[in-house]
Amino acid sequence: MASPSSGFWPFGAEEGSAAAESPGTARAWCQVAQKFTGGIGNKLCALLYGDAEKPADPGARAAPGAAEPRPSCPACTCDKKPCGCRRADVNYAFLHSTDLLPACNGEAATLSFLQDVVDILLQYVVKSFDRSTKVIDFHYPNELLQEYNWELAEQPQTLEEILLNCRTTLKYAIKTGHPRYFNQLSTGLDMVGLAADWLTSAANTNMFTYEIAPVFVLLEYVTLRKMREMVGWPGGCGDGIFSPGGAISNMYAMLIARFKMFPEVKEKGMAAIPRLVAFTSEHSHFSVKKGAAALGIGTDIKMPNGFVPFLVSATAGTTVYGAFDPLIAIADICKKYKIWMHVDGAWGGGLLMSRKHKWKLNGVERANSVTWNPHKMMGVPLQCSALLVREEVSPKILAALVLSDILLLTVLDVFFICVTVTLFFLFSLKGTTGFEAQIDKCLELAEYLYNKIKNREGYEMVFDGKPQHTNVCFWYIPPSLRSMEDNEERMSRLMKVAPVIKARMMEYGTTMVSYQPLGDKVNFFRMVISNPAATHQDIDFLIDEIERLGQDL
Amino acid sequence: MASPSSGFWPFGAEEGSAAAESPGTARAWCQVAQKFTGGIGNKLCALLYGDAEKPADPGARAAPGAAEPRPSCPACTCDKKPCGCRRADVNYAFLHSTDLLPACNGEAATLSFLQDVVDILLQYVVKSFDRSTKVIDFHYPNELLQEYNWELAEQPQTLEEILLNCRTTLKYAIKTGHPRYFNQLSTGLDMVGLAADWLTSAANTNMFTYEIAPVFVLLEYVTLRKMREMVGWPGGCGDGIFSPGGAISNMYAMLIARFKMFPEVKEKGMAAIPRLVAFTSEHSHFSVKKGAAALGIGTDIKMPNGFVPFLVSATAGTTVYGAFDPLIAIADICKKYKIWMHVDGAWGGGLLMSRKHKWKLNGVERANSVTWNPHKMMGVPLQCSALLVREEVSPKILAALVLSDILLLTVLDVFFICVTVTLFFLFSLKGTTGFEAQIDKCLELAEYLYNKIKNREGYEMVFDGKPQHTNVCFWYIPPSLRSMEDNEERMSRLMKVAPVIKARMMEYGTTMVSYQPLGDKVNFFRMVISNPAATHQDIDFLIDEIERLGQDL
Repeated sequence: MASPSSGFWPFGAEEGSAAAESPGTARAWCQVAQKFTGGIGNKLCALLYGDAEKPADPGARAAPGAAEPRPSCPACTCDKKPCGCRRADVNYAFLHSTDLLPACNGEAATLSFLQDVVDILLQYVVKSFDRSTKVIDFHYPNELLQEYNWELAEQPQTLEEILLNCRTTLKYAIKTGHPRYFNQLSTGLDMVGLAADWLTSAANTNMFTYEIAPVFVLLEYVTLRKMREMVGWPGGCGDGIFSPGGAISNMYAMLIARFKMFPEVKEKGMAAIPRLVAFTSEHSHFSVKKGAAALGIGTDIKMPNGFVPFLVSATAGTTVYGAFDPLIAIADICKKYKIWMHVDGAWGGGLLMSRKHKWKLNGVERANSVTWNPHKMMGVPLQCSALLVREEVSPKILAALVLSDILLLTVLDVFFICVTVTLFFLFSLKGTTGFEAQIDKCLELAEYLYNKIKNREGYEMVFDGKPQHTNVCFWYIPPSLRSMEDNEERMSRLMKVAPVIKARMMEYGTTMVSYQPLGDKVNFFRMVISNPAATHQDIDFLIDEIERLGQDL
Repeated sequence: MASPSSGFWPFGAEEGSAAAESPGTARAWCQVAQKFTGGIGNKLCALLYGDAEKPADPGARAAPGAAEPRPSCPACTCDKKPCGCRRADVNYAFLHSTDLLPACNGEAATLSFLQDVVDILLQYVVKSFDRSTKVIDFHYPNELLQEYNWELAEQPQTLEEILLNCRTTLKYAIKTGHPRYFNQLSTGLDMVGLAADWLTSAANTNMFTYEIAPVFVLLEYVTLRKMREMVGWPGGCGDGIFSPGGAISNMYAMLIARFKMFPEVKEKGMAAIPRLVAFTSEHSHFSVKKGAAALGIGTDIKMPNGFVPFLVSATAGTTVYGAFDPLIAIADICKKYKIWMHVDGAWGGGLLMSRKHKWKLNGVERANSVTWNPHKMMGVPLQCSALLVREEVSPKILAALVLSDILLLTVLDVFFICVTVTLFFLFSLKGTTGFEAQIDKCLELAEYLYNKIKNREGYEMVFDGKPQHTNVCFWYIPPSLRSMEDNEERMSRLMKVAPVIKARMMEYGTTMVSYQPLGDKVNFFRMVISNPAATHQDIDFLIDEIERLGQDL
């Protein structure tokens, strides 16, 4: 441990340590200086040693001014690996990434650095759940650009600077796990999911084959089978693949459906097969259109003679309204005309975990393929999407497609892991009953919100009836608009209400909820609840906050 | 902190703690039992409290047998948040995921649990760099399936079980950061990359807009601009996008090239435009073909009259040989025929960081688009790919495409973050000079290997001349084959040599290097060096190991 390039300083070294055996004047002063708080110690040390101590390039580590060798590493001598001892000895102001593993003697600095990063993260995590903290500390881009130096330089930064960067990054990040963050379909921060994600990063591998990812391949198999079981395919039969998102899963379904009907498309292209038509509803996710554009089908195709319908993409849980297509009726039509039935359950698939709500997906078991994003309702960290395929005819069509290079498979392998490990752990830890409780709670909260505002003064619902999912869509009508006639002027004023309230929410940082227009409906709030941290109290808070911020509009 | 559902046990509680104020007989015994090591304490406690203490479902937490309330949480009263105090108090055998945040009073359990996960990971990280540990502890699938219970149950597991799962998962995982792991193009485990990945998981957000990811959007901008600068576009002009892998980046390039030449393809599909032809070399990555299949172009298209060439996909660093296409000559042709020039620099792009080696990519600055995967040579954790676009004609074509929904953009947003944060941090911390040193070292090691084996007895090189990248392709010829004539029998015996040696490597777990056939060349070793932890000593070890394991073949 006595390398002069170890980059360690003996600050706070105990008597008898290696450092105490090789004292130097500057170093002795430096040790004293380190007793000051607030980073003053580091600055004083830098002064004492001069700028030469901050090497300009990783190769030039030795301090020219120091005649004696750099003090040896005073790290612990305990047998525990990794040990948590003596972190105070590491002075990041003098360390660079080249001092971390695989650097010789880099172990102590590495452990100390990673532990300090984790401390920052744990602090962030705890804060995320604290209702007294802001959801967001909002600044405009020019403010951030002025306040910090974001330029990427030729010269390396110190570890101290990188820890500062970590803190800055998190300071201005939105706390997506905050109980009052309702802005996206995927909110919340699951602790087991986080742990599994950290593990995946440390394993840093991909999943090409069993050879290089033995355990992960097994976990993938077990997890996908379980998901197919939940869809209702006996014994979890069929096949599946994890992908980096619902849009790609939907595109894969389209690829498979096309390949199954016209396998020659792979070699000969779209020119060799009839014109294809896919059906989907107006409220379906935009990725269905995107997929049709990418695959060369076209987004604007109407059905004339000679055109071949090859796919129906039904939606289980639309993005805005959370509505469910009538899957049984669609299955009947697909069966009659021999069309591939795909169900985009990216958002609604989570309800399969709930005995109380899964009837909304009745008929999904008759689909040929299903997209399901566990990152949405199930607390899996972003991104986690699965495409599940029920194979009836030829065995293992998905595997066949993979082998025939149709799918962009190997690119995606790392997601298998990420998703696999996380989802497997979440499944194990929560059990299906745990997921069920979580999902039922979100739906109950949505119903609570709906019941609370449906007849409340100043609110109008965007669609009739109880929401099928946790999407509650509504306008807040400020007092000044409440007695107005329903004419264009009212519309144009109402249009501006949600954006102003949202902007104020962000400025105060108290809560966040999304808004949008849809068709002829002007901007309305789309509340969704997928955050397991949310409670009735947070719903009440949201309503109060909307009224507080919108009262004067 | 005195909730009966907090799930805490006062094991090892100090005098005066909340727990000590409410003693119970079983609990008192349990405290004593906890002094035993090896998990015996937990088992005794479980016995003392009976099975009722292990609730069957998260709702049924209260212990029916316990008349008195559950002891209150003995967690610390220090002001430090998060505090590292008193982790010994947490008994995971009685805790479930529902006891973690956002559970009421879940803070201490959460911090303790995450810290224990991190301890496991840090131990794994340190081990990864230790040459005396195995690269892999290999088991066949049936062994793993028999030894552990991989089934996903309805009932939740305890946190103890999940920590055990973490350990098991890592025990059988390949240590991709191990200095003797040479199996993939992307090897190594960068400590700053790991830290940034952990941060990204904790931030758990996506990057749709500045609104929800303010800092990340800025980091993305700065990082992509820097990469374009390295490509050679003045001031880093142009546009870019991070994607989950090189194959998707290549597919995006194809999408953009097609859209730019025939914008009507988006609405009307491939049927409305001429037959398209793309050019690429035999050694190019299979994703170019996959992309052509997915986009409806077809993989087997030859160039007759009326067909329109729209794309040349040149390769900078092929997967197997590490070869570089002549980019300047290709640029001239593309210019003459007005064809989109794409450079797949997924593997070779890293050399742009090296003043010594970047000449191999001369001409890349004339490309219309470039794929570059920093997860390969630059130590960024998997997956990190960028597609960079030099826009000459219309401003911000990529942005236009995004708006026009051609790209499957929003699915990928989370990767922006992952990549952005990690890459930004790596850039900042290492500086371009740090990357340069790392890359130059890998190339120097490859040259060392090449020089060592090119004339060594028992080795034959697969291609002539010095490797352009770190790919060194060679056959090991066991003594029994050395005097044989070059006939079919020799070929069929040589074909089996690399697979057997590789299998033995995995069984011993000492090192890993990939092999493959290519065209008429039977199985050969493809050594690649991207692992910053590798040294000359590890190259020597590899050679010795191949000879040790292949001597008798």
